[in-house]
Amino acid sequence: MTTQAYIDQNKERYLEELFAMLRIPSVSTNKDHDQDTHDCAVLVQTYLVKAGLENVSLYPTKGHPIVYADKIIDPALPTVLVYGHYDVQPAAPLNEWKSEPFEPEIRKTEIHPDGAIFARGATDDKGQMFIHVKAVEALIQTDSLPCNVKFMIEGEEEVGSPSLYPFLQEYKDLVAADVIIVSDTSLLAKKAPSITVGLRGLTYLDVKITTARADMHSGLFGGAVLNPINTLCEMVAKLKNEKKHITIPGFYDDVVFPSDEERDMMRNAPFNAEEYMDSPGVYALDGEEGFHTYERTGILPTLDCNGIWGGFTEEGSKTIIPAVANAKISMRLVSKQDWHKATEQFTEHFTSLAPEGVKVEVTPHHGGNPYVTPTDSPEYKAASAAFEESFGVVPVPMYEGGSIPIIAEFKRVLGIETLLMGFGFDTDGLHSPNEHLGVWNFYKGIETIPGFYTKYAEMKKQA
Amino acid sequence: MTTQAYIDQNKERYLEELFAMLRIPSVSTNKDHDQDTHDCAVLVQTYLVKAGLENVSLYPTKGHPIVYADKIIDPALPTVLVYGHYDVQPAAPLNEWKSEPFEPEIRKTEIHPDGAIFARGATDDKGQMFIHVKAVEALIQTDSLPCNVKFMIEGEEEVGSPSLYPFLQEYKDLVAADVIIVSDTSLLAKKAPSITVGLRGLTYLDVKITTARADMHSGLFGGAVLNPINTLCEMVAKLKNEKKHITIPGFYDDVVFPSDEERDMMRNAPFNAEEYMDSPGVYALDGEEGFHTYERTGILPTLDCNGIWGGFTEEGSKTIIPAVANAKISMRLVSKQDWHKATEQFTEHFTSLAPEGVKVEVTPHHGGNPYVTPTDSPEYKAASAAFEESFGVVPVPMYEGGSIPIIAEFKRVLGIETLLMGFGFDTDGLHSPNEHLGVWNFYKGIETIPGFYTKYAEMKKQA
Repeated sequence: MTTQAYIDQNKERYLEELFAMLRIPSVSTNKDHDQDTHDCAVLVQTYLVKAGLENVSLYPTKGHPIVYADKIIDPALPTVLVYGHYDVQPAAPLNEWKSEPFEPEIRKTEIHPDGAIFARGATDDKGQMFIHVKAVEALIQTDSLPCNVKFMIEGEEEVGSPSLYPFLQEYKDLVAADVIIVSDTSLLAKKAPSITVGLRGLTYLDVKITTARADMHSGLFGGAVLNPINTLCEMVAKLKNEKKHITIPGFYDDVVFPSDEERDMMRNAPFNAEEYMDSPGVYALDGEEGFHTYERTGILPTLDCNGIWGGFTEEGSKTIIPAVANAKISMRLVSKQDWHKATEQFTEHFTSLAPEGVKVEVTPHHGGNPYVTPTDSPEYKAASAAFEESFGVVPVPMYEGGSIPIIAEFKRVLGIETLLMGFGFDTDGLHSPNEHLGVWNFYKGIETIPGFYTKYAEMKKQA
Repeated sequence: MTTQAYIDQNKERYLEELFAMLRIPSVSTNKDHDQDTHDCAVLVQTYLVKAGLENVSLYPTKGHPIVYADKIIDPALPTVLVYGHYDVQPAAPLNEWKSEPFEPEIRKTEIHPDGAIFARGATDDKGQMFIHVKAVEALIQTDSLPCNVKFMIEGEEEVGSPSLYPFLQEYKDLVAADVIIVSDTSLLAKKAPSITVGLRGLTYLDVKITTARADMHSGLFGGAVLNPINTLCEMVAKLKNEKKHITIPGFYDDVVFPSDEERDMMRNAPFNAEEYMDSPGVYALDGEEGFHTYERTGILPTLDCNGIWGGFTEEGSKTIIPAVANAKISMRLVSKQDWHKATEQFTEHFTSLAPEGVKVEVTPHHGGNPYVTPTDSPEYKAASAAFEESFGVVPVPMYEGGSIPIIAEFKRVLGIETLLMGFGFDTDGLHSPNEHLGVWNFYKGIETIPGFYTKYAEMKKQA
C-alpha cells in the first residue's frame, strides 16, 4: 500500500484520535489543570506507540513530562527530530466561545468550506503536532520511512518551556539529529504556501506600581496624592512615541532588517487585509509608521500590554484612590535582539519613568530569543520541494510574528537548525476564543510531510 | 439629671448599640447585601424609637428604605433636620483588614490612645450618624430638647442617593426644617476643631475601549493592530498636563477660588503632612503645582482612575492583544461646577482622544454638585459656639475634599442650608481597609451636639 493510500484509509480515525486529545484541557499556565496536562502526555505516548515508534517514554521534569519516541532504521542515515507541544493556552474568556473549548466541533467557515475543528489547541499545537505523528505512522506502517525519526513533545511551551531547557542539556545525545521540524506556525493561504524563516523572540513581564500601603478615599486624598493607575497609564504612554516607535533607549540597536530584496518579497506576498482583520474582528490596522503589516509582525519588535488591573473593578462604583496598579507587558523581539538584554533595557527605562513617591516592581516571567532559518541548506530545499509537490506552488519564505523561544535554544544548545512548516492559518484564532484548524489543513499537512522525508533522505544521499 | 450625666451613665450601652449596627454588612453597592442593608434600616428604626422619637417609619423606595422620625415639641419653635446614612462602602480588599470588617474591635493607635472602633462604617457614617441619635436621646430623656428635631437616614448614600432625590420632592413638607445637620465629615484634630463649609461634587463614569471583537495572539497581531490597553493608557495620560492640570477644555470655567484671605486661613490651619500620609501609608504628596494640600483637596477639582481592567489578569502569562480595556474614572468638582456639564465635557474630550479604529463607550454612574455653607448665619454661629464650648477653641471653617452630593440638593429642592459637623479624622481610613472611629471622637460628638441645639434655640428666640 502507498503512504497516501494508508492516509486515505485512516482519515476518519486520525480525526477521532485528534478529538480525544483536544478534549483534555491541558492548560499548562494553570495549576488546577496539572492532572489534565499529565493525562494529555500519556495520550500522546499512546499515539506514538500506535504509530509504530520505539523507545516511547515520558521523561519526568519539575513541571510537565516530555514525551520522547524514535524509530532508528539505520544509524548511518540522517535523523529528523520532530518537536511539538501538547499543552495549550487558557480558554478564557469562555463566554466568547461558540462551542465548548474542550469539546471539539466541526463547523464550516468562509475560509474553511470543508469545515474546521473548533477547540482550544486545535491548531496551537495539538492538531499541528498530530500531523507529524500521523504522517510518520503512515510512513512506518507502509514501510516507507526513508530515514531515522525522533519525537520530542513537551507540555510547557505556553509557559516558556522551563523544563525543556535543562532536558536539552541533559539529553543532548538522545535528541541528536540533523534537522528539527516543527509545525507551530502558519501557511499564508491554501494557494500560497509558505515556510516560516523568522520567528520573533519574547520577553514577558509583570509590572506593579505602588503609591501607598492602602487604598484611600478619593474625596479626602484625591488631588493631593499620586494615583497609581493614572501614573501607570502615564508611564505606559511614554513607552512609545507618536510614530509608535518604542522609546526604550538602545532597544533597536540589535535590530537588523532583512535585505531590501527580501522586504520586497514580503511586501509583495499575498495579503488580504480584510481577511486578516476579520478573524479577530479588529477595527483597524495600526503600527509603526512606514512599514507593511508583514513587516510590523515579522521584522519589527513590539511592546504591548497583555493585561492591566488595579483599584475597584467590580460592578458599580467605589470612590477610592487605589494603592496599587498592575500590568502585564510583553515585547516581541527580532533578528539579533537578546531577551535578557531587552528585559534589562525595559526595566531600567520603565523604572526611570516613575515619578518620586512611586514604588516600581518589574518581575520578568519568561522569554526567548528570535530565530532565523537559513534558506540555502538541503533541509530548507527539501521542505520547499515537498511543499511545491503537494501545493503545486513554490512556498514563500516568511517572517512570522509569533515566538517559539525554544527554537533559538535548539541552535544554541544542540547546534541544529529548525524548519518551520506550519499548516494552519493566522486567522485560526490562536490564543483566542474559537481557535480552530481547517480539516483540509490537517489532512494537507499529513500528506505533505512524507514528501519532506523522502526528498530530504534523497538529497542527503546525493550530498 | 443633666444631659451630660445621662450620657455618662449610658456610655457603655451606646457603644454596644453601635457595635450591633456595625455588625450588619449594609453594603449598598452590592445586590448580595440587599437583605443586610434592609436589616440595618430596621435596626436604625429600633434605635430611634428607643431614643424617644415619634412617627418612626421606614419609607420604602425603589432601593433601600429611608428611615424617618421626629419629635415636634412646639411647631412655633425652630426645627433641626438630621441627615445621615446607614449604608457602607464594600470592605474589599479583605486581606488588608487586621480584624473582620463587620466584627467591630477596639484597638489603640497613636492618634487614638483611648482606642478606636475598627469596622467598615465606623466613621462613614454609622458611627457619626449614631452620635446624633444618642445626643438627641440624651436631650429627650432628660427633658432638655429645646426645639423640634427630625431624622432622615438613608441607605443609598454610597451609590449616589438615587431614592432620596424623589423622596425630597415627594415629602418636602414632612422634612421641612430650618437647618440640616450632618456628621459625615472630619475634624482637623482634637485640639483644632473645624466645621466643614465646602464639599466637592462628583461625577463617576465607566469607560470602555474596544478595538476588536475578540482577543488576538500577540505574535500574529502584535505590532500591526491597536492595543486597547496601551490606547487607554495613552488617552488617560493625556487627561492631565505636566503640572497635573486637567486638560478637558472648559473644565475650570466654573471654578471660583475663595478669597485670598480664606485661602490664607486654610494654608495656615494645622497640617501634619506625616500624619496625613501615614494613615494610608502614602509614599509622597502630589497634585496640581502651586497649591497647598488643603487647597488640592478642598478648592481644586480632580480626575482619578478608581479602577482599571482588561486583558489577561490571572497568574502567569497569556500572550494576547486584548480586544477590550476598561476603567472607572471619577472627577471631584468644586465651587460652581455642575456635574452634568462636567460629565459632558469629559465625554466629549475623552472620545476625541481616541485614535481611529477605537470604539469608546462612556457610561456615567452618578454624580452631584459641590456645596458651600454660608458662615454668616445664626445656624453656623450656633454650631461654632457649641464647638468652642466643647473643645475650648473656635473651630476653623474648612473646605473638605469629599462629596455628599445630596447636600447641594437639600438647598436646591428644600431651600435649606446644611451644617457639616464631623467628629472623625481624615486619617480614619474612610472607604479603605481598617476604617475606624476614635472612641474619644464618638463621645465628644455626643457631648458637643446638645450644645448646638441649646445655642441654636436661644439664638433663634433672640432673633
